Amino acid sequence: MVEKRSPISVGECVRKVMEYSSKGKTEMVPIELAYGRFLAEDLIADHNVPSFDRSPYDGFAVRAEDTERANSNNPLSFKVVGEIGAGAVFKGQVRAFEAVRIMTGAQIPEGCNAVIMLELVRESSVGNQKYIEIKRQLKIGDNISFQGEDVKKGTILAKKGTYINPGISALLATFGYSKVPVAKKPVVGVIATGSELLEVSEQLTPGKIRNSNSYMILSQIERAGGSVKYFGKLMDDFDKCFLAVQNALSEVDVLITTGGVSVGDYDYLPAIYDKLGATILFNKVAMRPGSVTTVAQLDGKLLFGLSGNPSACYVGFELFVRPFIRKYLFSDKPHLNRESAYLGEDFVKPNPFTRFIRGKFSFNNGQLIVTPSGFNKSGAVSSLAKADSLIVLPGGTRGYQKGMIVDVLLLEDKQGSEWPWDNIVPSYKS
Amino acid sequence: MVEKRSPISVGECVRKVMEYSSKGKTEMVPIELAYGRFLAEDLIADHNVPSFDRSPYDGFAVRAEDTERANSNNPLSFKVVGEIGAGAVFKGQVRAFEAVRIMTGAQIPEGCNAVIMLELVRESSVGNQKYIEIKRQLKIGDNISFQGEDVKKGTILAKKGTYINPGISALLATFGYSKVPVAKKPVVGVIATGSELLEVSEQLTPGKIRNSNSYMILSQIERAGGSVKYFGKLMDDFDKCFLAVQNALSEVDVLITTGGVSVGDYDYLPAIYDKLGATILFNKVAMRPGSVTTVAQLDGKLLFGLSGNPSACYVGFELFVRPFIRKYLFSDKPHLNRESAYLGEDFVKPNPFTRFIRGKFSFNNGQLIVTPSGFNKSGAVSSLAKADSLIVLPGGTRGYQKGMIVDVLLLEDKQGSEWPWDNIVPSYKS
Repeated sequence: MVEKRSPISVGECVRKVMEYSSKGKTEMVPIELAYGRFLAEDLIADHNVPSFDRSPYDGFAVRAEDTERANSNNPLSFKVVGEIGAGAVFKGQVRAFEAVRIMTGAQIPEGCNAVIMLELVRESSVGNQKYIEIKRQLKIGDNISFQGEDVKKGTILAKKGTYINPGISALLATFGYSKVPVAKKPVVGVIATGSELLEVSEQLTPGKIRNSNSYMILSQIERAGGSVKYFGKLMDDFDKCFLAVQNALSEVDVLITTGGVSVGDYDYLPAIYDKLGATILFNKVAMRPGSVTTVAQLDGKLLFGLSGNPSACYVGFELFVRPFIRKYLFSDKPHLNRESAYLGEDFVKPNPFTRFIRGKFSFNNGQLIVTPSGFNKSGAVSSLAKADSLIVLPGGTRGYQKGMIVDVLLLEDKQGSEWPWDNIVPSYKS
Repeated sequence: MVEKRSPISVGECVRKVMEYSSKGKTEMVPIELAYGRFLAEDLIADHNVPSFDRSPYDGFAVRAEDTERANSNNPLSFKVVGEIGAGAVFKGQVRAFEAVRIMTGAQIPEGCNAVIMLELVRESSVGNQKYIEIKRQLKIGDNISFQGEDVKKGTILAKKGTYINPGISALLATFGYSKVPVAKKPVVGVIATGSELLEVSEQLTPGKIRNSNSYMILSQIERAGGSVKYFGKLMDDFDKCFLAVQNALSEVDVLITTGGVSVGDYDYLPAIYDKLGATILFNKVAMRPGSVTTVAQLDGKLLFGLSGNPSACYVGFELFVRPFIRKYLFSDKPHLNRESAYLGEDFVKPNPFTRFIRGKFSFNNGQLIVTPSGFNKSGAVSSLAKADSLIVLPGGTRGYQKGMIVDVLLLEDKQGSEWPWDNIVPSYKS
């Protein structure tokens, strides 16, 4: 007797998952380990940058008003009354026709309001006293980096949940974060099921394939920002699978299994969810590939049952597991970023279901082009190698021609979107 | 006496760096640690995928010719002569009007040439003997995933130097790479110089700033794929800096310093290169920011002298150090990927030098839009936080208006370009 399942639209399925998703915890890491993590707090400027008026060049600080009549026919002489190395502060007061030698980044001395670049003056000495000659008029503020011109105190420079890139690292250092509050990575457990699976190190034998989904998912977890706990692969054996799932659950924030979620005789996951007392959120998604994707929850903890087919497994992860991880990492945009792109080649196959075709994008003179990245079947693995996007073809539509605008979900994007699932026609035949 | 330096075009400077760049070494890592590394060898399929004809669905394998007259008015009965779980192989021979129960992924039994999905048959029993009824005609090949349809043996699936993404991880597993040959990361040393620099943990004091460049560069090194060796920050003191550079050199594949490369009184790097016996490749680049970027080589090992100004330092790294790292990681496209984009806002300031404006891109209905990411000065740090690209404005050009097409270099891109520096006008005034 084959169980009859009713397909639910992708958006509705994602919404069910997000009801059981929540923001995670904060941990402190040394700044040198913060790259690639996600901020657990807003990064707020606690001082102006620059924090003082400073010189952007090597040169001489003067009073602009003293240069008013300077030109190439009328060089004016200034007495050099001091020198400020970077990091030093000039203690005196600069008066009329006096100049202070100033290094890049040093604080403008009291009384000065302009800097002339080193290359533009002639230096001379009378005994131990140095002088410079200035041949051009300076305006007030010339060559001064003003306090706060880069960052005003109190500015929110990056929101909680932001990916820490090199620029954010620079700001964290600027504002004294020797330890950085980052989102703790959720621990994502992975169990592969399937009697056909060989270990990667094993020789191929008739009827068997190597376990590729596990290593694919481990990488997807890392790309999304999670931490991996891999429990290995299991034969299709109810008792062993049940125990493995039960034991794994207590060690992880969320558990992924691959395989065993369909309606075949060896698909034990539905029975395992049942015996655990877990509630099924959905077990049939109105999409291709990955329609068998099943998600259950037990005491609020999610169990993702992904397909055993590589492409289906891949898509299921990105649509359902990724937003769980990103929300845990404090993102307000946990879903894949959805953009429009021009289809790079004909894709004529019609299908009643919403499809997620593995794609590769490129640019052509300012236009985003996306092209299917290879062999397009649920079980395909080759097309995943070049995939950096999923082309979304709404259900019920006919084939697409080259040059048409399609929706794409960007896989390598670090920012995501709040909710990409509106206006994708959830059409399917039940 | 101010040293007179002659600016050299960016392309020419990069070319000089690449003359001293070379591909690195290979190391083996377990497949679970391969994500995010770069392949040290071409990934070649050593077998077909699938490696045997298999069923993409749960169902029954039959001979298509036996279904020729089946239709809803004429259901035909087939005797179920066996069952194949995933990973198992059917030993017998299937004859006329016989069927074999087959699971997703299992090998098609000898004699069969089509599969009918489980949902489409009616099962029945006579004693212990099971039968199915088929009500439609099947064609030869229906619901069979054929040997090699996904990947043909001998195909190069990913070239040496390719970034290992989740799809590549799946392929590595499929082809038995329990250990993966990846490019060894180059060890990139970092020394910050400048008496104005405080440690990140120190309180701000007048005239001083926290050392942000080091942490920015550590992140840039990681983003590019290198391994960081951080030697800390130093005061502007010739002897200390000389010793630090000399000692660091022996421990790294390449050394970066920040600050001290200009022509000021405390800019000791030129003298340090001289005392080391290093040859200067260039010390003035016809660009803004980062014109003071200096690169020297000693016994073939490169010393990158980046500006102490954050934006200038950032740009210098991406243009000069990144391609060194990526080439070491076996990439044939070590440089930043250059694309065209529409300028998202006016940028009216003209400049005789080629400029690299920190930008942020977005998409608008299939168009790539790039917008300056913030305050645009050599010393700025805030604009780096949102930067994912550099807008290239060739030297000598006037301001740009919103909507004009400009060149952009993509910073988060994993693929790069072979040579982005042609057709960028190297105009400057010497």
